[in-house]
Amino acid sequence: MQTKILLTEQEMPRQWYNILPDLSGPLAPPLHPVTLKPMTPQDLSVLFPMALLEQEMSDKRWIDIPDEILDVYSLWRPSPLYRAHRLEKALGTPAKIYYKYEGVSPAGSHKTNTAVPQAYYNKKEGINRIATETGAGQWGSALSFACNLYGIELVVYMVKCSYEAKPYRKSMIETWGAKVYPSPTNKTNAGRSILKQDPNCPGSLGIAISEAVEDAATHDDTHYALGSVLNHVLLHQTIIGLEAKLQLKKAGDYPDVVIGCVGGGSNFGGIANPFAYDKINGKNVRLLAVEPAACPTITKGLYAYDYGDSTKLGPVVEMYTLGHDFVPPGIHAGGLRYHGMSPIISKCVKEGLMEAEAYTQKMCFESAILFAKSEGIICAPESSHAVNGAIKEALKAKEEGKEKTILFNLSGHGYFDMTSYDKYLSGQLEDYEYPAAEIKKALNKLPKV
Amino acid sequence: MQTKILLTEQEMPRQWYNILPDLSGPLAPPLHPVTLKPMTPQDLSVLFPMALLEQEMSDKRWIDIPDEILDVYSLWRPSPLYRAHRLEKALGTPAKIYYKYEGVSPAGSHKTNTAVPQAYYNKKEGINRIATETGAGQWGSALSFACNLYGIELVVYMVKCSYEAKPYRKSMIETWGAKVYPSPTNKTNAGRSILKQDPNCPGSLGIAISEAVEDAATHDDTHYALGSVLNHVLLHQTIIGLEAKLQLKKAGDYPDVVIGCVGGGSNFGGIANPFAYDKINGKNVRLLAVEPAACPTITKGLYAYDYGDSTKLGPVVEMYTLGHDFVPPGIHAGGLRYHGMSPIISKCVKEGLMEAEAYTQKMCFESAILFAKSEGIICAPESSHAVNGAIKEALKAKEEGKEKTILFNLSGHGYFDMTSYDKYLSGQLEDYEYPAAEIKKALNKLPKV
Repeated sequence: MQTKILLTEQEMPRQWYNILPDLSGPLAPPLHPVTLKPMTPQDLSVLFPMALLEQEMSDKRWIDIPDEILDVYSLWRPSPLYRAHRLEKALGTPAKIYYKYEGVSPAGSHKTNTAVPQAYYNKKEGINRIATETGAGQWGSALSFACNLYGIELVVYMVKCSYEAKPYRKSMIETWGAKVYPSPTNKTNAGRSILKQDPNCPGSLGIAISEAVEDAATHDDTHYALGSVLNHVLLHQTIIGLEAKLQLKKAGDYPDVVIGCVGGGSNFGGIANPFAYDKINGKNVRLLAVEPAACPTITKGLYAYDYGDSTKLGPVVEMYTLGHDFVPPGIHAGGLRYHGMSPIISKCVKEGLMEAEAYTQKMCFESAILFAKSEGIICAPESSHAVNGAIKEALKAKEEGKEKTILFNLSGHGYFDMTSYDKYLSGQLEDYEYPAAEIKKALNKLPKV
Repeated sequence: MQTKILLTEQEMPRQWYNILPDLSGPLAPPLHPVTLKPMTPQDLSVLFPMALLEQEMSDKRWIDIPDEILDVYSLWRPSPLYRAHRLEKALGTPAKIYYKYEGVSPAGSHKTNTAVPQAYYNKKEGINRIATETGAGQWGSALSFACNLYGIELVVYMVKCSYEAKPYRKSMIETWGAKVYPSPTNKTNAGRSILKQDPNCPGSLGIAISEAVEDAATHDDTHYALGSVLNHVLLHQTIIGLEAKLQLKKAGDYPDVVIGCVGGGSNFGGIANPFAYDKINGKNVRLLAVEPAACPTITKGLYAYDYGDSTKLGPVVEMYTLGHDFVPPGIHAGGLRYHGMSPIISKCVKEGLMEAEAYTQKMCFESAILFAKSEGIICAPESSHAVNGAIKEALKAKEEGKEKTILFNLSGHGYFDMTSYDKYLSGQLEDYEYPAAEIKKALNKLPKV
């Protein structure tokens, strides 16, 4: 009875999968936040290296992973695929449950898969300084590790309330060498203007993005980097699904359903897109994105053009959105609190290739604890949504007396999130109803395109 | 250029290696703490199951690992062996550095290797409740995971100052289902008598052991469990070294030196004992234990009979000791702050089979940060001593212009110890001189045997 299905380094995929040429048509063009006219690569080159912008708009299905990146990936990749025998037994389900574990990376989540290529391509184009934001801290720590490898100076604007609530993530970012500031700071115009209005402002992802973008735009040698949403980020993450396919083939299996949690969409796209390729080519496989009920972008949002950030500095894109003004309740899966959604995932859902469900947080923690007790791994609150999705599918299979193969992405470990487990175990965690009124209000403020 | 040398589950060793029959003679018998007469297995059966006591005194070289345990081990074992290419490059050394990474276990350290068999053998003998103590929290969390698997109720007495300083470890213990109390508690005579003298007592490992032993001795259905020092604990840990030997063979290599940190001696014994077997049979290999200068048990202690715990409840054993009264300075490698040493490791050092060095903590953190920056893994403060040992050996090889193969055990990750990295990075960490006066005082109180 095998538990782990492993690949050797030699078996690691040599190319990322780009889904763009396989979609029914091109994505709607990103628009400039001020003029609302289509943006060119040149508009974006202040923030990103050309190599990443080319990937962002590429029509090549397979994109080579440079040897230097493969070499870094080998520190933790190929990541293991687990058969969850003990969870299956605990549930008494006839379903087979597999999970791909991305918590083995240095920073503890899938974010490192894109942090490394982003740092690499920036370095190749002579960039020696990057500015970024981080909320929960997973992206900031992954990029700190990656920038350290290439000798790039990194400045992280970390949402102040996270900076204070998660001091261990801050220490991790500093251990790899980056500078991290609680945002809003007095280092940018955006930060100073916020602090003038409210010196005790706890910060938000929107504000932190503004500070990082301003930092990059106002320093000649500095670029900006984003950890989700964009096409090139999903591209880099497809190594997850490509490996999983090879591993399932070794196990003589193929999934009936592929599950991942979604905030910006990158870990879900990472595992699902390579299976979407099969589906486009006739395979019967369900691709299920799970989101928090407190921030139900796909299940309750609109498919429309909207700003990617709350301060309207970034591009305007067509996607599922709850409105750039919407501030989700403070649930513990901080990485899933985003008003928008990757344009690729949005289009795939719109066209019926992918589907979505939304869960409240208490049921997700309950599932995470059953998972920890049976499989050993204490997962991130974000990943607990995927665990809950897999458990629901397995229980449905039990009810229907059907065999079924379930694959889900365990995007990261929860070692930096133990206070949220504490709150759940001591009964202090609250579920949030679907915040209908706030969403309705925010959706009234979409840009008139 | 391969980074990870992996074994399949089928290649996992099926037997633990027991070094006792290969030593020059039997260990001196453990003595009763009150009578100072040799103890029998019956004396100890109030605390431990017979299967573990048999292993404790076995003269069989190879002991079968039950299938049920192999099955649990497969959740994280075989653990990976890494070739530290990037660290070698950073050091500019001609030496090859390999490390075995035990941080992949559910609780994040090697402790799980013995927690699982200890829970298993207790359950097999009908025990439904176990009491234990924990200092830094690694042992308490490993045993909580293991007891949960076998439906055993677990009570953990956690040193109060750790309980307060490491709330995440406490949450982890609770997530797997154990009860955890800040020690001293008012649940035992030992605890109550301490609290009567000092209601604000921060606790100590000695007090917590007393509470756990009293709990086990005064409840019919309850046993006690210890996470290091004892022969059966080292036995279970030998799977580390046995796997490493198979992995190095795959890489076509054999170590010139094997390095591990020592507190009670179990992770070092785990990696070193299988190589000690080779050494006894004529192989040329150095076995290097590294300890903190603040608690230099082997390098500055006496080889003598002493109490294993500060409250004189446990057996009196022959070992290296700093005196059971010695309280080490509060360094961040809490798991290495033990006045005694595994009798097996002690005898091996005494007879020249193994050797030891002691390092101050700042140099260990400096090495840990170089390691994190090159290899990605942020290690536990305990493991940083092994990292520092490996780096010293590699730099010596560079100086001498010699090729050399170094193997060390990276016993766990440091995700629950980020405050100590914070202190190091902000210059707040202190080195402690060798506490000569305190040791001299404590060594005057050895039992007169």
